[in-house]
Amino acid sequence: MTTDDRADAVRPERVARAYLLRVAEPPAPALARFVDEHGPVEAADRVRRGDTPDPVTAETEARAGQDLAHRDLREGAAVGARLVIPEDDEWPAWPLLSLQVAGARGVAGTAPPLALWTRGPARLDTATTHAVAVVGARAATEYGEHTAAEIAHGAAGEGITVFSGAAYGIDGAAHRGALAAGGGTVAVLGCALDVGYPAGHVGLVNRIAERGAVVSEYPPGTPPARHRFLVRNRLLAALTSGTLVVEAGRRSGSRNTATTAGVLGKVVMAVPGPVGSALSVGCHKLIRDAHATLVSSVTELIETVGVLDGAAGTGDAAPRRRTDGLDAESLRVYEALSTRRGRSPEEVAADAGVGISRARAVLPALELDDLAERTDSGWRRTRDGPGRAST
Amino acid sequence: MTTDDRADAVRPERVARAYLLRVAEPPAPALARFVDEHGPVEAADRVRRGDTPDPVTAETEARAGQDLAHRDLREGAAVGARLVIPEDDEWPAWPLLSLQVAGARGVAGTAPPLALWTRGPARLDTATTHAVAVVGARAATEYGEHTAAEIAHGAAGEGITVFSGAAYGIDGAAHRGALAAGGGTVAVLGCALDVGYPAGHVGLVNRIAERGAVVSEYPPGTPPARHRFLVRNRLLAALTSGTLVVEAGRRSGSRNTATTAGVLGKVVMAVPGPVGSALSVGCHKLIRDAHATLVSSVTELIETVGVLDGAAGTGDAAPRRRTDGLDAESLRVYEALSTRRGRSPEEVAADAGVGISRARAVLPALELDDLAERTDSGWRRTRDGPGRAST
Repeated sequence: MTTDDRADAVRPERVARAYLLRVAEPPAPALARFVDEHGPVEAADRVRRGDTPDPVTAETEARAGQDLAHRDLREGAAVGARLVIPEDDEWPAWPLLSLQVAGARGVAGTAPPLALWTRGPARLDTATTHAVAVVGARAATEYGEHTAAEIAHGAAGEGITVFSGAAYGIDGAAHRGALAAGGGTVAVLGCALDVGYPAGHVGLVNRIAERGAVVSEYPPGTPPARHRFLVRNRLLAALTSGTLVVEAGRRSGSRNTATTAGVLGKVVMAVPGPVGSALSVGCHKLIRDAHATLVSSVTELIETVGVLDGAAGTGDAAPRRRTDGLDAESLRVYEALSTRRGRSPEEVAADAGVGISRARAVLPALELDDLAERTDSGWRRTRDGPGRAST
Repeated sequence: MTTDDRADAVRPERVARAYLLRVAEPPAPALARFVDEHGPVEAADRVRRGDTPDPVTAETEARAGQDLAHRDLREGAAVGARLVIPEDDEWPAWPLLSLQVAGARGVAGTAPPLALWTRGPARLDTATTHAVAVVGARAATEYGEHTAAEIAHGAAGEGITVFSGAAYGIDGAAHRGALAAGGGTVAVLGCALDVGYPAGHVGLVNRIAERGAVVSEYPPGTPPARHRFLVRNRLLAALTSGTLVVEAGRRSGSRNTATTAGVLGKVVMAVPGPVGSALSVGCHKLIRDAHATLVSSVTELIETVGVLDGAAGTGDAAPRRRTDGLDAESLRVYEALSTRRGRSPEEVAADAGVGISRARAVLPALELDDLAERTDSGWRRTRDGPGRAST
């Protein structure tokens, strides 16, 4: 570590966010807004002093005294982890915008992360440029694991980063398939990076950290917990263009990830299976009831997500975005559109949190830029356009 | 056979239609319109004399001299078949209205049948009141046949008549499942009732004819042919509320039935299967690309088709229709609505063949009657309503 690295590691925003990650259990919507408003350094100071509005106090008072930022940064570094913060170039601002939009709409449990503990060589902005989440049941069948590995392998071979949760079953098969293709894969955990969970996947997680990245909101030492997996799921959904559920029982955490992906305007997909299999029931329900798109091959996955628009597989760290040059409001309107289903201007306005007349003005402008199109059923995001045409 | 029966069998409309069924290969859209306009007796006379407009002449001139109506009626009677005609009480006018609407819109291959050769105790109006088509590949897997039999068995147990094509594979399994439940089942053939095709299903077809009905447009002696199966498929689609494809390869006749069902505004459904199975590819494509509804159980089938609205299972031969009392134009508008997808008034008007201003007037009237509803994506047929509320 050079002196510059060390200086960067202890820059005040990073120290402040390390402190804030520990004092509030994510998602902490009031704190996230407070940090947005005042910046992390002032926000951290005021949390320490207890000088915060009631909702922020409610989220932070139990642990406000735990000022372990420097220790956490040291302990993170000891296991090869860095704390990536919104002030860093590699912060995945674009995919996380979906959480900001949902959070602004008041959707519960969708506050953006304050920072992300990250272990591995992959930059988070690059890793999320062309990314899908491949998730599913822990108690998967051989069919499910085989299918997850096949699709992840094919996706990684096409330059798509496969995100998953490092759990037994489908998650593990997805990571392994991506690794076998020599591709990038990212594990997002519901515990700290240093707790070695799940025990049987420590070796797998280490391999992921060598080639891709392992990511968590939780400060060193945080044990896994049921609610943390649900909270983690919003990151899997947000950081990727779409979520593919490979196998899921009737009540399944993977369906939670898929539902969140839908709420965030991402593509929701599911793999079908034999109707007699209890592990396909959740997938079939997603397709039948939640209009998830049926995906039975990597070709269909790519066709559905459209992740190859633009610069996939080029390794370009900062590909030109289709939306470069859009103002923040137009970006929110764009973000509120789906590539699959048409939406009315009213619906778009509500989702984007802009006035209806503003949405009506912005939508035709997006159409001129080839970013949106009118269909029988309403306004839709275009699948390709400038992103594909350029480069 | 009593004297009355015999008189009824040789009533002039029946003789005329028996003649017309033989002289034109179905579907014969020009002839169907000509018969609608002039009635079957005058139409038959003019076809015999060659006194017909060019399109009708084109459909009939090759066989106009084959005046075998009395012989066909005798030969039909010899194998226990009657010729059911639109002038009979049991004619399934309501389901076949979908073909008339599609025919009027000029959709190729959707002319309604001129009459239906029918063998078996089931009345066609009763049999079609609560009916689904369960179809699929001939070279089915054990999984497919098992699933078809299970679902058909469950449906028949709920008082739904299972229609299929009596082919090997899925069709046969569907008929057998319905028979095993002691329920009604109807086979619609792509050849005459007396040719014993497919050879291995003669026994099955006889059992269907003992308990339900075997139906065909083709006069005695007509052999099966590839194009006749496709023409037959429109009857399976039209006579039922929805078509369920259980297994289908990439290029499959069952997908043709499903597509036709969609064109006719009926419900299109498909059973998923393992993604590695070539026999599930067609089903997955239907769900993915044609927005067929995924169905994995009889419960989901019933939920999707909504066939139990009203008087299912009561054996009531003439249940009260939700649409009793609607004028012909309103009925066409109602028929142009889908229970699944919202449609714009323009689309409904085009499909129903009424003016756009008329459609705009009729749709709110249907809404008041609880027959239609406005959704985000347009006008949709309601799933339940008076039909469920009454009785």
